[in-house]
Amino acid sequence: MFPKPTLILFATLLTVCSPADALWPQPRNLQTGSTALRLSGGFDITISGSVHNAPSDLHAAVLSTQNFVKTDKLGRLVVGRGSVDAQAVSKAKSLSKLTLSLSQGATAHSITSEAQKAIEDRDEAYTLTVPSDGSGATLTASSTLGLYRGLTTFSQLVYYNDGTTYILNAPIHIQDSPAYPYRGFMLDTSRNFFPVSDIKRTLDAMSWVKINQFHWHVVDSQSFPLQVPGFTDLASKAAYDSSSVYSPSDVADIVSYAGARGIDVMVEIDTPGHTSAISKAHPEHIACAEATPWATFANEPPAGQLRLASSETTKYTAGLLAAVAKMFPSTLFSTGGDELNTNCYAADANTQEDLVSTGQTLEQALNVFTQTTHKAIIAEGKTPVVWEEMVLVHNVTLESDTLVLVWISSDDVKAVAEKGFKLIHAASDYFYLDCGGGGWVGANPDGNSWCDPFKTWQKSYSFDPTANLTAAEAKLVMGGQHLLWTEQSGPQNLDPIVWPRAASSAELFWSGPGGNVSEALPRLHDVAYRMRQRGVQAISLQPEWCALRPGVCDLTA
Amino acid sequence: MFPKPTLILFATLLTVCSPADALWPQPRNLQTGSTALRLSGGFDITISGSVHNAPSDLHAAVLSTQNFVKTDKLGRLVVGRGSVDAQAVSKAKSLSKLTLSLSQGATAHSITSEAQKAIEDRDEAYTLTVPSDGSGATLTASSTLGLYRGLTTFSQLVYYNDGTTYILNAPIHIQDSPAYPYRGFMLDTSRNFFPVSDIKRTLDAMSWVKINQFHWHVVDSQSFPLQVPGFTDLASKAAYDSSSVYSPSDVADIVSYAGARGIDVMVEIDTPGHTSAISKAHPEHIACAEATPWATFANEPPAGQLRLASSETTKYTAGLLAAVAKMFPSTLFSTGGDELNTNCYAADANTQEDLVSTGQTLEQALNVFTQTTHKAIIAEGKTPVVWEEMVLVHNVTLESDTLVLVWISSDDVKAVAEKGFKLIHAASDYFYLDCGGGGWVGANPDGNSWCDPFKTWQKSYSFDPTANLTAAEAKLVMGGQHLLWTEQSGPQNLDPIVWPRAASSAELFWSGPGGNVSEALPRLHDVAYRMRQRGVQAISLQPEWCALRPGVCDLTA
Repeated sequence: MFPKPTLILFATLLTVCSPADALWPQPRNLQTGSTALRLSGGFDITISGSVHNAPSDLHAAVLSTQNFVKTDKLGRLVVGRGSVDAQAVSKAKSLSKLTLSLSQGATAHSITSEAQKAIEDRDEAYTLTVPSDGSGATLTASSTLGLYRGLTTFSQLVYYNDGTTYILNAPIHIQDSPAYPYRGFMLDTSRNFFPVSDIKRTLDAMSWVKINQFHWHVVDSQSFPLQVPGFTDLASKAAYDSSSVYSPSDVADIVSYAGARGIDVMVEIDTPGHTSAISKAHPEHIACAEATPWATFANEPPAGQLRLASSETTKYTAGLLAAVAKMFPSTLFSTGGDELNTNCYAADANTQEDLVSTGQTLEQALNVFTQTTHKAIIAEGKTPVVWEEMVLVHNVTLESDTLVLVWISSDDVKAVAEKGFKLIHAASDYFYLDCGGGGWVGANPDGNSWCDPFKTWQKSYSFDPTANLTAAEAKLVMGGQHLLWTEQSGPQNLDPIVWPRAASSAELFWSGPGGNVSEALPRLHDVAYRMRQRGVQAISLQPEWCALRPGVCDLTA
Repeated sequence: MFPKPTLILFATLLTVCSPADALWPQPRNLQTGSTALRLSGGFDITISGSVHNAPSDLHAAVLSTQNFVKTDKLGRLVVGRGSVDAQAVSKAKSLSKLTLSLSQGATAHSITSEAQKAIEDRDEAYTLTVPSDGSGATLTASSTLGLYRGLTTFSQLVYYNDGTTYILNAPIHIQDSPAYPYRGFMLDTSRNFFPVSDIKRTLDAMSWVKINQFHWHVVDSQSFPLQVPGFTDLASKAAYDSSSVYSPSDVADIVSYAGARGIDVMVEIDTPGHTSAISKAHPEHIACAEATPWATFANEPPAGQLRLASSETTKYTAGLLAAVAKMFPSTLFSTGGDELNTNCYAADANTQEDLVSTGQTLEQALNVFTQTTHKAIIAEGKTPVVWEEMVLVHNVTLESDTLVLVWISSDDVKAVAEKGFKLIHAASDYFYLDCGGGGWVGANPDGNSWCDPFKTWQKSYSFDPTANLTAAEAKLVMGGQHLLWTEQSGPQNLDPIVWPRAASSAELFWSGPGGNVSEALPRLHDVAYRMRQRGVQAISLQPEWCALRPGVCDLTA
């Protein structure tokens, strides 16, 4: 009745999924052929002599790419794995080198410094060519950051079988640059703490899919793990314990590790809400600290917000933000501004006294607080970044170049754009990695979460960044990011809850919208399997039977 | 405005969460005092001389418990961790030993043999006493299996601070035995493969919460990783690869590792559906193998079911099941029987010919197939276990002692009980660990799953095992289990997707229903934190801030 359906299906899949199509994010411009090339035993990646004073992080990136080429040992995701390529590869010419050069006139700055530029000044474009005749592959760019992106692409071209490392589909010509300048990932290290090693492993994985922004939500009401020079009492009194602290040298280590991987680190000190932890060291600055019932005074326990109407508190906060700003070379600094609770201030005698004595409303006081604190970070060379409430709920005067993170709902994007602010997509209905995993507040018998259901990779992948926007408004979209709030996460589930899901926004904002989930799935399997080869515990998206048979497990197959 | 709410809250929590209350599952009978005891440096667990010929697995369990007592080093989950106990502990008497004995007249069989008995013959009761005067603690039971359960409990009493291991709340008197004889966990090793080490680590974690049954869904349509003597072509042709195979010695290793931890291993060879993989070695036995569109012929790709109307296929299956039965000492054997697809047989010429030639309907042929295959395992001393469709959808004659797994919905429990079958709770609406994590078939733009939302620990914990049952029907409930289907799971997320969630059914079926999620949460944190100390990556259920402050993050707090 069903004569050899298997063979028919395999014939199909070989045409729909060629290896160079396993790149992620998909290059904007990709031409491939059908010739296999073996990488020679002495395969070498070299920086052209025309690149003067190549920076050390570029040398490190070259070494690391050479290492991936050798150690990934990824068998291609087809039935039989790499063995199906054995015949073609045995007859293939050998590729002995990849040479990196900068475009004429370009200067070799460090990858780090290129990555830490203002987002619109980052140059990530590159051109990668792998000829089919075995003559050297070439990678050119007008910045070391572009070269870094090209190296990442090159490492994804390589498969392994039975002692041989090879590339299929030469000649390959790729001309690539991102659709959006901001492609981020946010991690909350306050609800639960993550050791530096977990953050570094996450930065590695981010770099493999060309994410260029780490949004570090480092502190919150639950704990204050950041050791800030001049403000060390915060970490010593409000970190979970003395080992759950990021010292200035840890921060420098993370920033430099990120930079060398083409990633900028934007720190967030969320203010004036989400600051209960500060009360452990400075109760004088916090209204309604740990007040009960917490749900009256905050969206999450414990309650506690900066006394924004107090000039002393405003000064203290401005000083804190300036000190934190000095720790991070990024041009971006998030001051938060979400979920401000008015009951907290209404019930706080100090705040009420301050409002009366200055004759201000709470909103007017918030405006002063925001302007003062923003001024402090602007003085440190930062561009402020805020959560959407600061422009949609509060009537605060902000610098016109302030970046706005849209989180409550993607429905709010239009309103932010209409106000003329540049924005970053971070909406809970598409990009919250923690949604659907169960609610975490106690005494909740069913225990489901406010942002059910689970946000699948397909959901975020299908997001339209410019839906309902005019052409002018669309220009305000800087990009987007996945986010991990960690009420129910820690080092135990970091990799599996993030990867490969967060790769879906990485491609969306690099390659541009309109991708098809059926076409993307085989490539995303490749991302996950390669991540595992490199020590990141990315989950299975399907039974291995399906991963080896692209398209066959589609609903319609 | 909010005078020291912290202090008030702490005073409360100290009374609601004493350490001996951190046991999981909660003992059926627990009396505690308020005296601290330090474990002496030479603290020793000994088997009384009155126990003749103590088996080697009991000796091993004693050593392992001594090891946990030394290496858990779990700080108590309160603000300040173990340091809050330092004063009480510094003045405490010292406890130097725990002595195990069997009740008078009891014989010391191995834990393994006691665990592998028929479920209603397992004796897991024990009595544990820790006097407050520092005289020796005692553990008695009428079986080594009971002693094993008591050792598990003892290890949960122990906390650590600054070089000292201690117990609080002596005198402690525990008399304990399970409410239900079957407390299981099911793992699917076919959709994605799990190395033996992952299974062993899971068995460890299961034993720590007194789960006594490993339901091993070892093969399915996607892969056949079980090497069966006499049927080795199945694994060699239908395992994902040669390293993704459980050899007979792997099975013996797993069975013995489980047995020594008080866990019986019930294997499942799901028939006649879910058998596509067999077609790789024996296409003659499989109808509609990999037929397309798969959704017409199966609930999951790839399609393929045993030709149940063929006497040759029936004989082959009976032989296979008998051979598998010989590999597992358990009295239980699951033959599956779920999701039989009739389109597959309607479209299969061989099956239609067989039905015509024997003059049978498909249901009659299924009856013959089932009776023949069940007879084969009954001849090997097994009691058949089936999924619910075998009694609710099909009109199959089953032995009256057949156990039925209710999976489709907890609403089906009543109907199974009304038919007089013993049953195991395994319903997808309460106990499926994979639900809510996204759907996995391709070309599914939103990608959510059929059994959304996520099944939280609170949901399974609040399950009522005898809802709507008469007293007579309630006696048919043997227990229940969590289940992990692994379309989107693998070694990468095994620990975080299972733990501590699966501990919720472990307590439900040991301690009995009616537990309160608010009371349970602090104890479940203890489970998760202790698991981590022992190398199992159990996730955080709340921010650490909440874990250290029982009740404070409740919705109502």
